Amino acid sequence: MTVQDMPRVRLHDPFWNAYRQLIREVVIPYQWEALNDRVDAAEPSHAIENFRIAAGQRQGEHHGMVFQDSDVTKWLEAVAYQLAQEADPALEATADEVISLIGAAQQPDGYLNTYFTVKAPMERWTNLAECHELYCAGHLIEAAVAYYQSTGKVALLNIARRLTDHIDQVFGPGPSQLPGYPGHPEIELALMRLYEVTGEPRYLALGRYFIEQRGQQPHYYDTEYEGRGHTFYWPSHGPAWMIKDKAYSQAHAPILKQDKAVGHAVRLLYLYTGVAHLAQLTGDAEQAAACRRIWDNLTQRQLYVTGGVGAQSYGESLTCDFDLPSDTAYAETCASVALVMFARRMLELSPEGRYADVLERALYNTVLAGMALDGRHFFYVNPLEVHPATLAGSHRYDHVHAVRQRWFGCACCPPNIARLLGSLEDYVYLQREDSLYVHLYVGGDLDFIMAGERWQLSQRSDYPWNGRIDFELSGTPQGGIFFTLALRLPDWCPAPSVCINDKAVDLSSRVSDGYCHLRREWRTGDRVVLHLPMPVQRLRAHAEVRQLAGKVALQRGPLVYCLEQVDNGPALHNLSLPPSAEFHTLHGRALLPQIVQLEAEGHRRNAGVATSPYQALYRHDASPPQASPQRLTFVPYFAWANRGEGEMRVWVDEG
Amino acid sequence: MTVQDMPRVRLHDPFWNAYRQLIREVVIPYQWEALNDRVDAAEPSHAIENFRIAAGQRQGEHHGMVFQDSDVTKWLEAVAYQLAQEADPALEATADEVISLIGAAQQPDGYLNTYFTVKAPMERWTNLAECHELYCAGHLIEAAVAYYQSTGKVALLNIARRLTDHIDQVFGPGPSQLPGYPGHPEIELALMRLYEVTGEPRYLALGRYFIEQRGQQPHYYDTEYEGRGHTFYWPSHGPAWMIKDKAYSQAHAPILKQDKAVGHAVRLLYLYTGVAHLAQLTGDAEQAAACRRIWDNLTQRQLYVTGGVGAQSYGESLTCDFDLPSDTAYAETCASVALVMFARRMLELSPEGRYADVLERALYNTVLAGMALDGRHFFYVNPLEVHPATLAGSHRYDHVHAVRQRWFGCACCPPNIARLLGSLEDYVYLQREDSLYVHLYVGGDLDFIMAGERWQLSQRSDYPWNGRIDFELSGTPQGGIFFTLALRLPDWCPAPSVCINDKAVDLSSRVSDGYCHLRREWRTGDRVVLHLPMPVQRLRAHAEVRQLAGKVALQRGPLVYCLEQVDNGPALHNLSLPPSAEFHTLHGRALLPQIVQLEAEGHRRNAGVATSPYQALYRHDASPPQASPQRLTFVPYFAWANRGEGEMRVWVDEG
Repeated sequence: MTVQDMPRVRLHDPFWNAYRQLIREVVIPYQWEALNDRVDAAEPSHAIENFRIAAGQRQGEHHGMVFQDSDVTKWLEAVAYQLAQEADPALEATADEVISLIGAAQQPDGYLNTYFTVKAPMERWTNLAECHELYCAGHLIEAAVAYYQSTGKVALLNIARRLTDHIDQVFGPGPSQLPGYPGHPEIELALMRLYEVTGEPRYLALGRYFIEQRGQQPHYYDTEYEGRGHTFYWPSHGPAWMIKDKAYSQAHAPILKQDKAVGHAVRLLYLYTGVAHLAQLTGDAEQAAACRRIWDNLTQRQLYVTGGVGAQSYGESLTCDFDLPSDTAYAETCASVALVMFARRMLELSPEGRYADVLERALYNTVLAGMALDGRHFFYVNPLEVHPATLAGSHRYDHVHAVRQRWFGCACCPPNIARLLGSLEDYVYLQREDSLYVHLYVGGDLDFIMAGERWQLSQRSDYPWNGRIDFELSGTPQGGIFFTLALRLPDWCPAPSVCINDKAVDLSSRVSDGYCHLRREWRTGDRVVLHLPMPVQRLRAHAEVRQLAGKVALQRGPLVYCLEQVDNGPALHNLSLPPSAEFHTLHGRALLPQIVQLEAEGHRRNAGVATSPYQALYRHDASPPQASPQRLTFVPYFAWANRGEGEMRVWVDEG
Repeated sequence: MTVQDMPRVRLHDPFWNAYRQLIREVVIPYQWEALNDRVDAAEPSHAIENFRIAAGQRQGEHHGMVFQDSDVTKWLEAVAYQLAQEADPALEATADEVISLIGAAQQPDGYLNTYFTVKAPMERWTNLAECHELYCAGHLIEAAVAYYQSTGKVALLNIARRLTDHIDQVFGPGPSQLPGYPGHPEIELALMRLYEVTGEPRYLALGRYFIEQRGQQPHYYDTEYEGRGHTFYWPSHGPAWMIKDKAYSQAHAPILKQDKAVGHAVRLLYLYTGVAHLAQLTGDAEQAAACRRIWDNLTQRQLYVTGGVGAQSYGESLTCDFDLPSDTAYAETCASVALVMFARRMLELSPEGRYADVLERALYNTVLAGMALDGRHFFYVNPLEVHPATLAGSHRYDHVHAVRQRWFGCACCPPNIARLLGSLEDYVYLQREDSLYVHLYVGGDLDFIMAGERWQLSQRSDYPWNGRIDFELSGTPQGGIFFTLALRLPDWCPAPSVCINDKAVDLSSRVSDGYCHLRREWRTGDRVVLHLPMPVQRLRAHAEVRQLAGKVALQRGPLVYCLEQVDNGPALHNLSLPPSAEFHTLHGRALLPQIVQLEAEGHRRNAGVATSPYQALYRHDASPPQASPQRLTFVPYFAWANRGEGEMRVWVDEG
């Protein structure tokens, strides 16, 4: 596939264009400053400096995480997507300089990693379980693919290929090769992308090797641990914990034997993104089934209503079925970015609306919540309930911030948001034979080829605030062509309807797997209007989720809402929403313009009266405390914490 | 004071006699086996062996905690209380042998600690912040005082005095002395006891020095840390965390500047037990006020309804005001034992019922919950909600067990229960001038002297199951003597009443500070009946406690109740108690005989119906799930987890 052959989408969407403008004008320049240690309020990154030192251009020590290189390549990937949207010669020149620097840091044999090159050149490939060499390679490959696709330039792609060829020599089943695989998956999905762009079957085979070797016995983590004399890199949870706790990195069993979503959330989701892509490329039904098992367990047992993944800070990891505490949630921004990537691969394996429903939930809620409306502040973790006054007092909240931070020592999340939002085009449509699937309602113009003819599909809406979406087809074909336009009917929409050229369509026979399949002879000028009414809905959790018994969350369209102290006063836990309460929507006020807020008449429990000052904490009282009427105001979860520090809560007591 | 002068109480109480029988027949023998490494199912203690090695009787290494010695001395203290109740020559012979062994391990200069003697003799007194030498000395002193008071034997008391004299030489303001104090308080309260028994003012002064030196600048922890070259003993939360986090051991400020209950719960409570005792002995009003500040903050802002202390596992410590999570609670058994001790000192400072109310709450709920009804299994931590299926899945529950354990590597709790229950007599009465206070309703016979005359007061009841308590006075005096019998009116009792010689007493003018003050001319044969009606009461938490909004706990008499899965089925979070529900009491069935259970008609939320299998976790549903009637059965919290593994929950949804 060449750059010219790519199906192209050009975004044209009021909601997303605003984010894209932030990415272009704020996030990418800001992150560039951060990578160069020029942001006063943030910890120095040293990431560019590490490359200079590795390239021999500077003297000095490596600083930062063992995976610090990936901050640079993820930034480059985001830049690539930006350059695909519009020319920016200055930005492209900066990126080309960075690429030259990366090339200069590459070793003669193709090896490329600043940590090991600068700090421990003799220890290359001796600690895959902990040390992220293959992870960093994966991010470099992803950047290279994106930069090539955007600009047609091959410099970074060639660097990536040299590195991959080197890795391909080092790893494999041969007698002089290492039978290893990464502790932090990422390269698997990157190799699938590299294979798609280059057509080089060795890259597909290498990704497949890493995936199929994972969790085999004798266990590679143990072998290399023995081999290097029992040293370990991460002491956080005890000696060699990351090596011993193999489920942490989903290496406790071969992929085909795994049936629960366990361990570090981002590792899990990067891994299965790669597995699903592999299964789609090879048609391997067993691997596809493994992906579905993990998907089902994750989304039906362990997913936060905001699309967040990972219930605990320990190991940034999943816990177990139906365990979804709101306040101690980890729900790393990167995990939801990765969930969006996994969902797209699942859609490519089998276009079912349930995958896109989850994709949308993660994208519009946790991923967006990861970045402030100013584009300059970020959440690494995304709990569903925050009580700022307690955060400093209890160590169980050590991972939680009540306001977004400018940057992080472990800065994986900000560039991940930038690269996902920058490549949103890749998540909207899917073409399969004579069907064009619309997964997301993101305005823009699509060029596609159907039955050999070039078509354009325009999509326009005020989504996610309004559920009317207008499509129009145009193209060059003489006469009509039969194909299927498959519009996703979101799980949250109770009564979707469709008009074609102003005539209502009977959906009863056309809906399957979460899509409305509009199969007809399409002609240029055909117009389709999809109506997705957006009533405010009460979400209730499965009866096994003990943290959420008796509580509801509100959703309108794809957006999950929350209460904030700035609108509702303190002690949000004392607010309740009567079952009969009606909702009013209102367009944003004050600091949150353009955002639809919800209002309802609720109650606030009053403080009971203690019978003595010594009974301040517990009082004997036969009757529940009186409740006063209070108007409740809800804002979209993604928009919380943009108006100073305060309490927030997604799940509210019903009653 | 000599042994003969001690006011004496002889327990005669159906409830407590059963526990005393367990202590005598099971706990003390079982713990003796454990200390000697003869319990198969438990980790070896090595505690006796350590003394043998330190005494030069065996070769070998020290094993166990740096404070392992205290397991032996706490056991000895429990034995002392047992011997005070009834002669047991075999047990006394065993104790005397242990005392000889301890004496043999004492060094020529009086120093006594097996860890340092065996393992690091050159490092004595170099790490007070972390290494428990003074803590172990405190427990040895307490055992010595108790053993002397019980048996009149001075061997252990002399060992303790030699050790204390040594410590008194090492520590103090002199130029050749160390200006230090213990990282883990305990010796302060022990020195007060030793002073009371011996009358030696140097012991009072030494305890006072430790208390007043605490938290002064330059900080002793830093000084000794520098002096020993930055070594540290406990790595658990990062290098030297225990030295740096001075609030952990309440050394962040001088006592007179402390106003919040912070840090490790047991350290806090042992420390303030000592401070309150000191303030009572010296009449220091500022120290007494400091104790009240800590008491008020602890009991009005940070105390679990079960009398548990410490909301987090991290550092076994308190968190902050109104933060009382039920499921991740630490609430160490030892902390509630220590709270009982602190409460008694507060009563001695000022006999106000609120102190005894908390004492009773801790004693009848968390302390008792620490031991199984079989006397052989123990809880170290005591959460108020346990969901066994999630314990293994989430690291936030690493400290929680759903069933009691046989012994612990850190075995501080089992002997602490034994020594508290063994000395329960010391917590029942207080004599102050011409008032005799009754704090607790524990049956038995008290000998006391009033106006120079010897009296007996008998107390009989079926407490805590029944609130009728019968008192009878007898004595030798000719004619009557004026004094005050002050009966505590518990905070939980809505309508207490009193009869003297079958005549009702008007309480209106006699109640103050939580006691009914019966001042009259008492004569031998006078009978008092106290009626404490025990309706089932709903407890509600302060409106700032966000974990408990909308929830109630049940209490009857001093007992807090809970739901268990064995009675109510799984998913206890789906049960709710209507505001109008009435309660029935019933005497125990099946495995819980003699225990009053509560029943009420409640509801169980049914599982809602998901609209698709992919919405299993969250469903859109305008109406709350239907609820089915279900009879709810509550058992006393102290008795939970005696019938196998299952869910438990104290706080239940109201609705």
